[in-house]
Amino acid sequence: MEVTCKAFQDRTYTIDFEWNLIDRVQEPFARHGIRPPFYVISDRTVWKHHGRRILQALAPHPVFPYLVRPGETSKSLSNWKKVQEFLLHNGADRRSTVIAFGGGVVGDLAGFSASTYMRGLNFVQIPTTLLSQSDSSIGAKVAVNHPAAKNLIGSFYQPHLVITDPSLLSTLSSREFSAGLGEAIKYGVIEDPELFERLFRDVEGLLSYNREFLGDLIARCIRIKVRVVEEDERETGLRKILNFGHTIGHALEQATHYRRLRHGEAVAWGMLAAGWIAIRRGMWNPGEFEKLKSIIFRAGSLYPLGTVTPGNVLEALKHDKKKTGKSLNFVLPERTGKVVIVGDVSPELVTQAIEFIFQLEPARR
Amino acid sequence: MEVTCKAFQDRTYTIDFEWNLIDRVQEPFARHGIRPPFYVISDRTVWKHHGRRILQALAPHPVFPYLVRPGETSKSLSNWKKVQEFLLHNGADRRSTVIAFGGGVVGDLAGFSASTYMRGLNFVQIPTTLLSQSDSSIGAKVAVNHPAAKNLIGSFYQPHLVITDPSLLSTLSSREFSAGLGEAIKYGVIEDPELFERLFRDVEGLLSYNREFLGDLIARCIRIKVRVVEEDERETGLRKILNFGHTIGHALEQATHYRRLRHGEAVAWGMLAAGWIAIRRGMWNPGEFEKLKSIIFRAGSLYPLGTVTPGNVLEALKHDKKKTGKSLNFVLPERTGKVVIVGDVSPELVTQAIEFIFQLEPARR
Repeated sequence: MEVTCKAFQDRTYTIDFEWNLIDRVQEPFARHGIRPPFYVISDRTVWKHHGRRILQALAPHPVFPYLVRPGETSKSLSNWKKVQEFLLHNGADRRSTVIAFGGGVVGDLAGFSASTYMRGLNFVQIPTTLLSQSDSSIGAKVAVNHPAAKNLIGSFYQPHLVITDPSLLSTLSSREFSAGLGEAIKYGVIEDPELFERLFRDVEGLLSYNREFLGDLIARCIRIKVRVVEEDERETGLRKILNFGHTIGHALEQATHYRRLRHGEAVAWGMLAAGWIAIRRGMWNPGEFEKLKSIIFRAGSLYPLGTVTPGNVLEALKHDKKKTGKSLNFVLPERTGKVVIVGDVSPELVTQAIEFIFQLEPARR
Repeated sequence: MEVTCKAFQDRTYTIDFEWNLIDRVQEPFARHGIRPPFYVISDRTVWKHHGRRILQALAPHPVFPYLVRPGETSKSLSNWKKVQEFLLHNGADRRSTVIAFGGGVVGDLAGFSASTYMRGLNFVQIPTTLLSQSDSSIGAKVAVNHPAAKNLIGSFYQPHLVITDPSLLSTLSSREFSAGLGEAIKYGVIEDPELFERLFRDVEGLLSYNREFLGDLIARCIRIKVRVVEEDERETGLRKILNFGHTIGHALEQATHYRRLRHGEAVAWGMLAAGWIAIRRGMWNPGEFEKLKSIIFRAGSLYPLGTVTPGNVLEALKHDKKKTGKSLNFVLPERTGKVVIVGDVSPELVTQAIEFIFQLEPARR
């Protein structure tokens, strides 16, 4: 499958989606004018599993790998600075190519680095996680975190090409895979009732790596994401719907200092909070909310919250980037497949929603 | 005068050019949807002269000023980081406006900060120097310096509006004014023989602040710059002509650690080196080169080079961002008003050109 994404002001890029595409990656590179030398940003776990494979695929061209620790804490200003030094000391110039070979963290770090070095190098995404293949590799958002807020420092920078190969997912840990399902479930709620139903019927099929279902899931997510960002790359309107589950989700990540939860896990918790608010406001069908809970629980996306408290989460909400003026924005379902942006959720309801998700934790029930 | 600049992929912005426009800046702000709060990045000298004036013009809206030391060393990663903290701690959100109120250094620092905070805030340029009014406030290039190379870290980020008020130039020191003439003289050589002739006849008129000539000079430079960046914002072709004098100029700045020379002074030295290479290659009329030397000398743009050596400059050239592959690019005049990009200048000729400009220094003659 080849999907073209028309980005901000007519710049387009292609998402090439195919099993085992990584092994013949030089074909799409040649078609799209992507040239060596290649500066591959990756993390140590991805490199352990797939480093040799990508080196073989890129041979005989010069490849400079830069490896970071796996995890959200690597998406830092200090790592961004190190990548700039790495590019400088290895002779990168304006025609060089930066490849993000990893999950969302690597994609964000590599993309922001590529966007700022010499005012922008060629940038290729080769996502290796379910979350990055189905979501974060598309849409041109790149950023690093600030201790005070997630993705505070970043830019919009389109990749020149996205290479999506689901065969790379076979080495994911079950926690990583379940976390990645968080964003995929989101697409069901916000845009795709059919996907939502299939997840409700058979999320177990995904967990057991049903190839057909997995391919269908990723393809559906890519198509939705492309459609949304084509209409509103800069998030002035429609794109905000992708933030379903992200208001509380980001606050959870920040309150746990980006160390405890994977992004998809935080989003899964956040979707439960947002769904609960929608129910309390009489917006959404309670039966559908029960289905969402069931999918998320069975997907295994709810990593325990640990020692963080509802008060910490409320504090973290104060720096939310999605705020406009003083009010927090929530994305809430009206029906499955249709969400709206709501700016007037009362602070009391937000507090109660946070308390609700904390009560869902087995340890606290 | 109002000039519209059609930027990369159809995004346009306006350069509003008028004497004393600063005092009624809220009118263009309202026309272009620029909203408070205003985060004004400036330098201490500019603020001393014009701080009260801009505060009055922006009243009664909330204004947060952030002042840096005047000079190229303020265009640093560490200042960029401080501006991000300043924006964060003063509650900037996606709808806030960053105003660059100063010369090229302030414009670059403020612009790069605006481009990366929350993936981009509104950005207004109010240039206060001859160089920034006639050149650097237009064209969307923003960056900070790296010890190893000028403008190494940056991006392309269009201002939403440029407010150009020549009345702000009245407080410039004579050194600052002469330095700013460097880039203006460049426009004569690369695109405007009429301007070049007028400068040759009467550069003294500018130095004595002839209002008509000054206004005409800035307007001509703006029109040329807009035409060039409209055709090639990303500098894949035509825009490279703006780098006349910049190959050696940037190396001089880097070799003097961005501390000694103003950018326009370095460009003035660099134009003499490039002009000399053009003559040695038999490309340009020696009489025109003599005129260029005369203009630059009489403009007072040649600040002494100090203790730096030709060897230091050659070393600095190794990290030139304008390099593609191994060869240095030079912009050389074929005739006054017409330059070409040349990639095959021999290292010997480069060395000799550097030695040539060092011999022009009174102290070394």
